[in-house]
Amino acid sequence: MSGRTARRRVLRITLPGGDRPGGTSARADLLAGEEPLGIRVDGSALTMTMRTPGDDLELAAGFLVSEAVIAARADIAGIKLCDGTTCGHTDHDGLGNIADVTLAPGVTVAAGARRNFLTTSACGVCGKASIKDICVLPHAALAGDDTRFAPDMLAGLPDRLREAQRVFSSTGGLHAAGLFSAAGELIAVREDVGRHNAVDKVVGWALFNGRLPLSGCVLLVSGRASFELAQKAVLAGIPLLAAVSAPSSLAVELAEEAGLTLVGFLRGPSMNVYTGSQRLVS
Amino acid sequence: MSGRTARRRVLRITLPGGDRPGGTSARADLLAGEEPLGIRVDGSALTMTMRTPGDDLELAAGFLVSEAVIAARADIAGIKLCDGTTCGHTDHDGLGNIADVTLAPGVTVAAGARRNFLTTSACGVCGKASIKDICVLPHAALAGDDTRFAPDMLAGLPDRLREAQRVFSSTGGLHAAGLFSAAGELIAVREDVGRHNAVDKVVGWALFNGRLPLSGCVLLVSGRASFELAQKAVLAGIPLLAAVSAPSSLAVELAEEAGLTLVGFLRGPSMNVYTGSQRLVS
Repeated sequence: MSGRTARRRVLRITLPGGDRPGGTSARADLLAGEEPLGIRVDGSALTMTMRTPGDDLELAAGFLVSEAVIAARADIAGIKLCDGTTCGHTDHDGLGNIADVTLAPGVTVAAGARRNFLTTSACGVCGKASIKDICVLPHAALAGDDTRFAPDMLAGLPDRLREAQRVFSSTGGLHAAGLFSAAGELIAVREDVGRHNAVDKVVGWALFNGRLPLSGCVLLVSGRASFELAQKAVLAGIPLLAAVSAPSSLAVELAEEAGLTLVGFLRGPSMNVYTGSQRLVS
Repeated sequence: MSGRTARRRVLRITLPGGDRPGGTSARADLLAGEEPLGIRVDGSALTMTMRTPGDDLELAAGFLVSEAVIAARADIAGIKLCDGTTCGHTDHDGLGNIADVTLAPGVTVAAGARRNFLTTSACGVCGKASIKDICVLPHAALAGDDTRFAPDMLAGLPDRLREAQRVFSSTGGLHAAGLFSAAGELIAVREDVGRHNAVDKVVGWALFNGRLPLSGCVLLVSGRASFELAQKAVLAGIPLLAAVSAPSSLAVELAEEAGLTLVGFLRGPSMNVYTGSQRLVS
């Protein structure tokens, strides 16, 4: 049951209506793969995410960037998937669903890890002061990014993202995250059942390829823009986050605080610019 | 910044095309509210979720059902929102974003809490044996639920869910979960920026109203059906989970193991039945 997609037998029911006869038929259906990936850092379990298999090391690395544990490739001393035969650990499933990360000397999970933040009740995420606290580091990077983006370039990105998705059309079940240059060139695209994972995979790809921070880039997500996605964009140094659907209130607040340009409802010939409109060439 | 929705100024850009002139205009836009809710159990922080404010106690209670911490109203000795003035705790934001739960004597978080499970790397969720392990309790309940559901009743539910959503049409940013009887009567509907939260709110409502397990009911979700949502349905004793979009591979596997009827792509006159088709009246 491992893979980006899984084939299942399904009973298709169509109701009668008008001149259409109803009926049922058994057929094969292609599903988006979903499996857990445990992320282990320096020998300790950090988190587990339900993800679509594939690009797992990018996912683990991107997650660590999004959690502010690491910021550069050099912060990782080693990263590999455990298959249960060589790692010596006894607490995995033997299917390669554990990403084992060793941090470079001096890099620790405790310093600024949002995971710890999120699992204590001392949240206060909802106060502006706290949003600033989370985003102290990336603030400077985004504020200094004066890239300009043309609305007609942005308007063309959703179609280009869909074209670049290899799996979506067959399963209908995968979110996509696409990274584009300011000229609209596709740099990277990743898919997942979870949109946060798709973004982490893109960020991990950038980390491994020495592209962080992603100054001058556009990140396009196929669904809605939540606080979490806005935070991932900020921590990766991306100046413009675009979403096909609506942003949440906290995503807009974070974007405003962090200097992120946030575009929503990017559909057809129109879009809504929620924050950072100075980066839009008019 | 508290509430189900938030109003923001937005710059609307429309590109020129055909006989349509392009232009930009500033206008007010209604966003789906998103704020953190910390869930504290017996004085200790258990988790935090980004949610749309509203029905917060239902969300907290439903989350505990979904995590197999509680199964009945009597398992909760007390539940309230902390406002920072009377609880004596110093680690909250003073905005009522902490749900404080006291469990009844003998009920503990450690016993079967999926949270603990998820945050260790000893996951193995992906093995069938493990899925059975998670769902030992609800298995019996679902197996004994021989309610039959008519496809034409199911086909009418998405429209009824949309009608019941008060916020969706204005923000475009909220997921919905609707609970229906086998006759198609709407029992409860809840909304959230996170579909898992919308389901937890419905389950929490059922808990508070003495409706668990939700035998003979349909749960309809506005988006996709993930493993997590299938598990929530199983733990609430719901025999049929329907989704407007695609299920994931692991959602289908869990549904099959647990005896849950899983319907996907419930759109217009057609639907896909992935598991448990014996409950569909043909």
